[in-house]
Amino acid sequence: MTAPPPRTYREVPPDGPRRAPAARRALARALARVVGDGGVLWRDPELLTYDADGLVLEKFWPDLVVLPRAGAEVAAVLRAAAREGLPVTARGAGTGLAGGCLAERGGIVLSTARLDRILELSADDRLAVVEPGVVNLELSRAAAAHGLHYAPDPSSQMSSTLGGNLAANAGGPHCLKYGQTHRHVLGCVFVTGDGETVRVGGPSAGGPALELLGPVVGSEGTLGVVTELTVRLTPRPAAVRTFLASFDSVEAASQAVSDIIAAGVVPAALEMIDRLIIQAVEPFVKVGLPLDAGAALLIELDGAPAGMERRGAQIRGLCDARGATGFREARDDAERALLWKARKGAFGAMGRITSGFAIMDGVVPRSRLPEALRRVAEIGRRHGLTIANVLHAGDGNLHPHVLYDVDDADAAARALRASHDILRACVELGGSISGEHGVGNEKRELMPLMCTPDDLEAMARVKRVCDPAGRLNPDKIFPTGREPWVPRAAGGTAGTWI
Amino acid sequence: MTAPPPRTYREVPPDGPRRAPAARRALARALARVVGDGGVLWRDPELLTYDADGLVLEKFWPDLVVLPRAGAEVAAVLRAAAREGLPVTARGAGTGLAGGCLAERGGIVLSTARLDRILELSADDRLAVVEPGVVNLELSRAAAAHGLHYAPDPSSQMSSTLGGNLAANAGGPHCLKYGQTHRHVLGCVFVTGDGETVRVGGPSAGGPALELLGPVVGSEGTLGVVTELTVRLTPRPAAVRTFLASFDSVEAASQAVSDIIAAGVVPAALEMIDRLIIQAVEPFVKVGLPLDAGAALLIELDGAPAGMERRGAQIRGLCDARGATGFREARDDAERALLWKARKGAFGAMGRITSGFAIMDGVVPRSRLPEALRRVAEIGRRHGLTIANVLHAGDGNLHPHVLYDVDDADAAARALRASHDILRACVELGGSISGEHGVGNEKRELMPLMCTPDDLEAMARVKRVCDPAGRLNPDKIFPTGREPWVPRAAGGTAGTWI
Repeated sequence: MTAPPPRTYREVPPDGPRRAPAARRALARALARVVGDGGVLWRDPELLTYDADGLVLEKFWPDLVVLPRAGAEVAAVLRAAAREGLPVTARGAGTGLAGGCLAERGGIVLSTARLDRILELSADDRLAVVEPGVVNLELSRAAAAHGLHYAPDPSSQMSSTLGGNLAANAGGPHCLKYGQTHRHVLGCVFVTGDGETVRVGGPSAGGPALELLGPVVGSEGTLGVVTELTVRLTPRPAAVRTFLASFDSVEAASQAVSDIIAAGVVPAALEMIDRLIIQAVEPFVKVGLPLDAGAALLIELDGAPAGMERRGAQIRGLCDARGATGFREARDDAERALLWKARKGAFGAMGRITSGFAIMDGVVPRSRLPEALRRVAEIGRRHGLTIANVLHAGDGNLHPHVLYDVDDADAAARALRASHDILRACVELGGSISGEHGVGNEKRELMPLMCTPDDLEAMARVKRVCDPAGRLNPDKIFPTGREPWVPRAAGGTAGTWI
Repeated sequence: MTAPPPRTYREVPPDGPRRAPAARRALARALARVVGDGGVLWRDPELLTYDADGLVLEKFWPDLVVLPRAGAEVAAVLRAAAREGLPVTARGAGTGLAGGCLAERGGIVLSTARLDRILELSADDRLAVVEPGVVNLELSRAAAAHGLHYAPDPSSQMSSTLGGNLAANAGGPHCLKYGQTHRHVLGCVFVTGDGETVRVGGPSAGGPALELLGPVVGSEGTLGVVTELTVRLTPRPAAVRTFLASFDSVEAASQAVSDIIAAGVVPAALEMIDRLIIQAVEPFVKVGLPLDAGAALLIELDGAPAGMERRGAQIRGLCDARGATGFREARDDAERALLWKARKGAFGAMGRITSGFAIMDGVVPRSRLPEALRRVAEIGRRHGLTIANVLHAGDGNLHPHVLYDVDDADAAARALRASHDILRACVELGGSISGEHGVGNEKRELMPLMCTPDDLEAMARVKRVCDPAGRLNPDKIFPTGREPWVPRAAGGTAGTWI
């Protein structure tokens, strides 16, 4: 056993709520009888990549990680966890960003990494039956031979899994036209906290009530562990056109977004980046965006080739009417990939302009987008912080990046308060605290902004139906009464910030 | 008080599980204090139209009908029902066809007829907030001024209500392209069996988990009474083209359906009628369908005008390749209405060819449609019955009309057994016992065909969360252990067949 590799950030000491090493070793042996010797990790170095959720600021070490190979093994692991009184946190690729897969109370992290088979792919019925550990993009690759793809495309689609996408009800740039994950999951099989296997939904339209698929999609592993998904496949568009328009201000760009939607054009994607993102990204991708532009829109049309010319001209006209300072179209797939890099490279380019940042995931009705962006700017000024914006603009889904200096504890605390204020503003404007990342542990204390006590109690009752012992991903989604987002490093409790 | 008007069919005597008139009068007085004098019906003649569900074969009289005017009144009615121990069955327009709105145990029928206001209509955000009693088509009429409509269009859309559509998760011809009701309801407010008011979903994309809207849509009033809906509005298509193709056989027509879908054309509607329906309908509508055609397809394209010509030619080519014996296009809106009449007039024209019929609502994966139709024909032969077929073919949704002579008790019983066999075949082919009408009381005993005991128990637990006393639309959806579809006239128990 080697020592954990050094880290460049503060990390949680691997004790906290965990059991003693001897107890963990005994548990590992028992579980290895279910999932095989290669299916249990319990030594600290092995657990290192299972303690965080993408960018999330807190890190927690589980007692052990279990990697089942079949639905029956998942059920056996959950029954074993019930006998041992251990919490179980299901985990896909760990790219959710809101802390949904963190093992805050230790226990078992149930990784779906070995449940990675495409069980059925029917071109005729346009659906696939898959295990939850199949990577999003892998399914689209497998379906490409039939001219099909899996439409929801989170930015993490090269690594995130279909089970994780289901847990977060993931979105993506093309979900403006095609709808989020819940529109593409037709049914699933999941195992409840007591180890019972339940099938909900199915391949056909309709299906008999009660429809229990809805609560499972987006439930972040709090209702059960999904062992099989039936998902819809969508024809790949015959033609695609991609445009990049620049504007002097985010107001002008957001007005153009409203105009495009109001005109009845439904782009496949309608994304916005603001000046700070442009300045971070342009030196990398060299797409030719002016560094003094206030905002840029990435607009993609897809569908049948006929009418594309007219719709493209219509979009250009609408952008020009709002004073677009630049407008270009990708001439080929290589240039299309370059334009997309300006959008998808935003996350990676943040390192150029900040040492730390918090990404929020709020939603407002599309018509309130200009006001929401004004409020984001005000909130930044009030807290003395810089905020960069990436938006799934067509959906009204904001991803403000609140920048701070990781060595300035006060700035980190202000960044978290500012993030909090932004989500509060989204709710005031008729929106939501989560567009696609889920609630996780990051936003649970904000749930009362959106839900009355009766609403929360209704959710809690459904949770208890599937998980009476509260063993599945405990404390997630529901308010705990603890202070949200307090940098724990200061207090020295269970977690800490990157 | 006048005697009930005479009826031409056997009806249930208005006693059964009901309370004595004096008790009902006292209840009516108490409830009138909540909903006003005009809001309670309890005298038998007043209850006459509230005892059946469209074509459904059984009829039950409630104790009284209550018509609240606001969500707060609904909650007060439910609390009163809880005090009195009365079941409550919510009712929209009574056009569900599967018996979902029947007051089998008497008690209160809660009609949403006076909850008929459009509370908000936002063209910018493309949504409407409505009360449940708003008639489906009325919302589309109100939205037309903004170039929008409410896309799901059940054949009953001139009379059925949005609340009833939600309860049944209604479909319609254009749901092939636009999706069923659950795709268009963004959120709702409902009152639980204990009189608590809960809001689920909302106007924005995403929204925090747990998503409890899913189970409510399609729950047929078993989880709560919906008092407000937020629904998506959809742009009216800029152009529409409508085609009618005839074929020698249902096999050829179903193969054409498969080919059209496989070619990646997504028609707005893709409906099929078979020879018997053609023979019943053609003499009425005079659309020019040959009476010896085996089947006809009604195919509608909508969207931007560009590309329509090409897509129309593609569809014609695909129909010709399957040996279409006729192919015509509507030249104008009047002719389009005529072609639709051939499809939508099917129900009304049945009286020309039969005295009684049972309509089923099964679904199969689209690729199994030819096989499903072969099985329907076999089942008809086995039971010595004639079966006519209307299909939302693009969705794989079958509506076999099983014909029988109402004066032949044995034929009625065979019709019910044949209907049963058809739904069993749908499930064997990977489909479902309900596409859009719901389960109601008609299909509850078939639920075990689709659901394991664990699946049903999961549903039952969710039901108990919202309705611990089992007061909301009792016995619906869930199997009761009683024989399905036994013509009760013979036994003289609670119900009888039309």
